[in-house]
Amino acid sequence: MEKIYDVAIIGAGPAGMTAAIYAARASLSVVMIERGAPGGQMVNTFEIENYTGFEKISGPELSMKMFEHAQSAGAEYSYGNVENISVDETGVKVIDCGDHQVKAQTVIVATGTKHRLLNVPGESELSGRGISWCAVCDGAFFRGKKVVVIGGGDSAIEEAIYLAGLVEKVVVIHRRDELRAQKILQERAFADEKIEFVWDSVVEAFEDKGGKLGAVKVKNIKTGENLTIEADGAFIYIGLDPITDMIKGLEITDEAGYVVVDHAMMTPVPGVFAAGDVVSKELRQVVTAVNDGAIAAQSAFKYIETKLK
Amino acid sequence: MEKIYDVAIIGAGPAGMTAAIYAARASLSVVMIERGAPGGQMVNTFEIENYTGFEKISGPELSMKMFEHAQSAGAEYSYGNVENISVDETGVKVIDCGDHQVKAQTVIVATGTKHRLLNVPGESELSGRGISWCAVCDGAFFRGKKVVVIGGGDSAIEEAIYLAGLVEKVVVIHRRDELRAQKILQERAFADEKIEFVWDSVVEAFEDKGGKLGAVKVKNIKTGENLTIEADGAFIYIGLDPITDMIKGLEITDEAGYVVVDHAMMTPVPGVFAAGDVVSKELRQVVTAVNDGAIAAQSAFKYIETKLK
Repeated sequence: MEKIYDVAIIGAGPAGMTAAIYAARASLSVVMIERGAPGGQMVNTFEIENYTGFEKISGPELSMKMFEHAQSAGAEYSYGNVENISVDETGVKVIDCGDHQVKAQTVIVATGTKHRLLNVPGESELSGRGISWCAVCDGAFFRGKKVVVIGGGDSAIEEAIYLAGLVEKVVVIHRRDELRAQKILQERAFADEKIEFVWDSVVEAFEDKGGKLGAVKVKNIKTGENLTIEADGAFIYIGLDPITDMIKGLEITDEAGYVVVDHAMMTPVPGVFAAGDVVSKELRQVVTAVNDGAIAAQSAFKYIETKLK
Repeated sequence: MEKIYDVAIIGAGPAGMTAAIYAARASLSVVMIERGAPGGQMVNTFEIENYTGFEKISGPELSMKMFEHAQSAGAEYSYGNVENISVDETGVKVIDCGDHQVKAQTVIVATGTKHRLLNVPGESELSGRGISWCAVCDGAFFRGKKVVVIGGGDSAIEEAIYLAGLVEKVVVIHRRDELRAQKILQERAFADEKIEFVWDSVVEAFEDKGGKLGAVKVKNIKTGENLTIEADGAFIYIGLDPITDMIKGLEITDEAGYVVVDHAMMTPVPGVFAAGDVVSKELRQVVTAVNDGAIAAQSAFKYIETKLK
């Protein structure tokens, strides 16, 4: 007979791996399905200084520690590019990975988010080497240095203000001549002597300097003028998208595509939970992801105990 | 002029230490005030297997790693037994430590919980003379001897298993006929030949024998039968109470004494936040404590940015 897992976890970032540890320790059968390397956004993070207990650890190293932890707790790991999740007539969740299917009584969606890319030269090569998508995570590495922030929305301006408290100078590069961010954020940013603005401009390339970011090449789209801005760091805030293509059919996402859950990480679909960055919430961090994973696993355990036994 | 910190954190468990890391990394001035050893409940935990990334680590060791992490991030540490927290007419929080005061713009209450007492004869007299709340601290005194564990939750069963590795016999006394502990712990305890169970029973008294614990008087609440169990040690794990005496004046706790917060870890008192086990919530774990700490620090940062600047 085809195996039906107690819990299938989609995505092996900190949320998914913590869910795996908690579910496995509760004696549930668990499979984590991941299409890339385990770790999620951590894999692309050069150094993590804010996961409590690890003063300083590389993203890939923390990813491997968590992965080994999940495996030693008894969670299975399976490669799979999940294309669709549906619920059959008996309530079993059917996870379609294109070339194969996985079945489970419960699903924890921990697929995370992906950054919108600028798609310019140097962007992928210098990712984690000066280019970052997270000021709270990486801002402290640039104390006393110069950074650029790319974008003009709430995130861009919030993070520019945050960075101005840490670094020597922040240059905000925005493709329009005014910001989209809330007024109060704009006022604060304009009042901050450390923040400068380069308007009507788009990034054309990131330049390497000894294996790290050295400068950002910018073009003014009104005048056509080119500008090279020396910078040690670049923070890109042109948007973030949740990875939720595979759960479109379940209708559990908000307008922006994030999964809506209650305090127990439950979605409106019985037996479907979500955890980590893919969830509609405010602070997306490793410490918040592990929280969600533990709660989602606990809720999956309770669902199985009460609904199925 | 008297120093006013940006953030004062009451309690240095995983929630408080994570709040310290996040606040310090946001360039706020931070002091953690603690009356015991840093680590909170972790200090009394033999082994931790469910803090993601550490496959297996002793509680005291994880406590020290987090403490070093918080200090290296720039948080100050201060001994203090906080007796009262009040808000002065300018909104500054005044933290009364009896022999000294600390002032801060914001307070994060991360005081955690303390073990509940049975309130039966002999309990206070024999505390430290056979009666203990910490198997890790005191288990080694009972090598080759017989001990009882009172309770049926995770802590009781975890510690019973731990004690079984040290002592001759462990008798678990539980007032119900089944355990509340996680499945995996139950399985381990039931498989351990050194662990016996006395079901449906409550402790009526602890008996003195030459100045130390000699026996535990137990009553079966279903049959009314009395039983005297000879024991050299008794470990009590019947639950926890939040440590919130010092915030009574702020009126931010629920009926059970836990602090009520919103999703941003804010209490109804402006500039007062809470995090970790002291908060009214469902799952109290290291992974959920660190989540709360980060969110509370972020909220303190926003409060200072928007209200005070």
